[in-house]
Amino acid sequence: MRKNDVYYFDRPPHVLSWSSCVGKKEGEGPLGGCFDVVASDDRFGQETWEQAERAMVETSLNSALQKARMSAGEAGCVLGGDLLNQCVSTSYAVRQLGSRFFGLYGACSTMAESLILGSCLISGGMEDTALCTASSHFCSAERQYRYPLEYGGQRAPTAQWTATASGTVLLTSGKGCGIAVTRAMAGRIYDPGVTDAANMGAAMAQAAYETLNGYFSATDEDPASYDLIVTGDLASIGRGIVLELAKDDGFDLGPNYTDCGIMLYDADRQDVHAGGSGCGCSAAVLCGHILPEMSRGALKRVLFCGTGALLSPLTTSQGESIPGICHLVCLEAER
Amino acid sequence: MRKNDVYYFDRPPHVLSWSSCVGKKEGEGPLGGCFDVVASDDRFGQETWEQAERAMVETSLNSALQKARMSAGEAGCVLGGDLLNQCVSTSYAVRQLGSRFFGLYGACSTMAESLILGSCLISGGMEDTALCTASSHFCSAERQYRYPLEYGGQRAPTAQWTATASGTVLLTSGKGCGIAVTRAMAGRIYDPGVTDAANMGAAMAQAAYETLNGYFSATDEDPASYDLIVTGDLASIGRGIVLELAKDDGFDLGPNYTDCGIMLYDADRQDVHAGGSGCGCSAAVLCGHILPEMSRGALKRVLFCGTGALLSPLTTSQGESIPGICHLVCLEAER
Repeated sequence: MRKNDVYYFDRPPHVLSWSSCVGKKEGEGPLGGCFDVVASDDRFGQETWEQAERAMVETSLNSALQKARMSAGEAGCVLGGDLLNQCVSTSYAVRQLGSRFFGLYGACSTMAESLILGSCLISGGMEDTALCTASSHFCSAERQYRYPLEYGGQRAPTAQWTATASGTVLLTSGKGCGIAVTRAMAGRIYDPGVTDAANMGAAMAQAAYETLNGYFSATDEDPASYDLIVTGDLASIGRGIVLELAKDDGFDLGPNYTDCGIMLYDADRQDVHAGGSGCGCSAAVLCGHILPEMSRGALKRVLFCGTGALLSPLTTSQGESIPGICHLVCLEAER
Repeated sequence: MRKNDVYYFDRPPHVLSWSSCVGKKEGEGPLGGCFDVVASDDRFGQETWEQAERAMVETSLNSALQKARMSAGEAGCVLGGDLLNQCVSTSYAVRQLGSRFFGLYGACSTMAESLILGSCLISGGMEDTALCTASSHFCSAERQYRYPLEYGGQRAPTAQWTATASGTVLLTSGKGCGIAVTRAMAGRIYDPGVTDAANMGAAMAQAAYETLNGYFSATDEDPASYDLIVTGDLASIGRGIVLELAKDDGFDLGPNYTDCGIMLYDADRQDVHAGGSGCGCSAAVLCGHILPEMSRGALKRVLFCGTGALLSPLTTSQGESIPGICHLVCLEAER
């Protein structure tokens, strides 16, 4: 049921397994030891960057299934997407599975969007299991959105680094591993008028704040009720704007608020400027760090807030501003 | 609940209103008199083709709301997408509404995908109303997928014509206009190995047949139980392959099977080669022709089967084959 904009799952879907697969640079970051698969080479044994991204998605889908001791055909449905035009990394990766498939496009909010819709399908009795997945690859994204790597383009100080990463969560209507999706809040689009595609954190920050503020108003809870509130991916500039917007409203997000784009890299050492981004960033931080921490009891209640910048290179070149969206998922560990 | 791959809506969502907005050529086709808005000029008063597509989507969203006497803010959520990179026609059009938004990418199957997920959200009690929408524009699609119009490229005889069209269905948990979404079947990906992007009907035909065959097996019904079985958009070549696949299995789809890509244009007179395509084609045929025919009692039970080719120009240039998907929605008129 929905109450005040928040979806409540009366029969909460449970997390059955998860998996993350990342590139070399992500493996060298602060969370490097957490991921299921770290590539020694961002080509993942393939000939093109696009095939590499597809292989990475296949790895994370198959690994989540293996952990649940399920074969490819046993997954009820897959919900997911990526950043490549026509979401081809995901659809080609899903081709080998034979599952029902819902293609999504939510930019960097895709992981949260897939968790919301997957949870609705399970909670509503339509699916017993759902694979929720999202990915991005630095090299395929740079070529598509900016310049081929060989060009050696300069990056702006406000720019974020598209993560080479994929994350998959397998949801079930049955008994999982003690983590449930209990609530969610689907995002609305906000556009603060930012036109600089090298500053997407600023473009998405208002959407993130509006979703968080709306959620706390709707639930009568406050940030202290959560062990972790994490946006993904605003990186340092966007996170700073969220904190300013909150301060202007006399609202304290507290010490447990951070961002997946900040967590994935050591910004100074790894030269990622504002921080990480890309659908795969929040997906991999969720599956590599947050869910394992919840599973071992270190985190009990988590708000996972996927943020997406709904632009294209064409809209930017036509002078359009960048609309943002933020989808929120409430995860709770049962012990 | 789901039984044998088919979603059954115990609390079926009802259609509250619908709207279609199309371009000049579509207005000159066999269904020209059916659409709510026919543009006199495919620019829809805008400066670029992309802005034109966005204006067309805004028109169809707003018109569906107006018919239901609802204001912009009153729609619970929007689910939809289009063919442009990063689905920008839909997200920019939704920006003005202020509704919760789920961005989808299902290529030409998007209208059916949005109806399935919107029905699940309503049936599961998460939303009271959902706007399901899909669009495409010939000129923005040609530039993105093939050549700018000014180039005057030759089209292959097997090619389909991307419709300049948008359709929106407003679903409700309450009393609608006597048409309900009673069942649905989400598609799986099938790839028969077609590599010719100018023959997408052939690439999608297997997915369409597998979904239809699976649906009739799962429900123990036969095609004669339906007044209309419509795929969208296989056009003449894809529809022919579906009929051959059915014949090979000794399965007769009967006289009520046709395709939105065949219905939208007069192929000979309008020089569209195999027929129409694009997310907007099946969306506009649904909203301009099928739902009005159901409403006036001329059609009672309809299977609306959205078919999508999950390729990108890049995958084609890298030699990849074209995977297809087909999502099925069962619509029933109550009188």
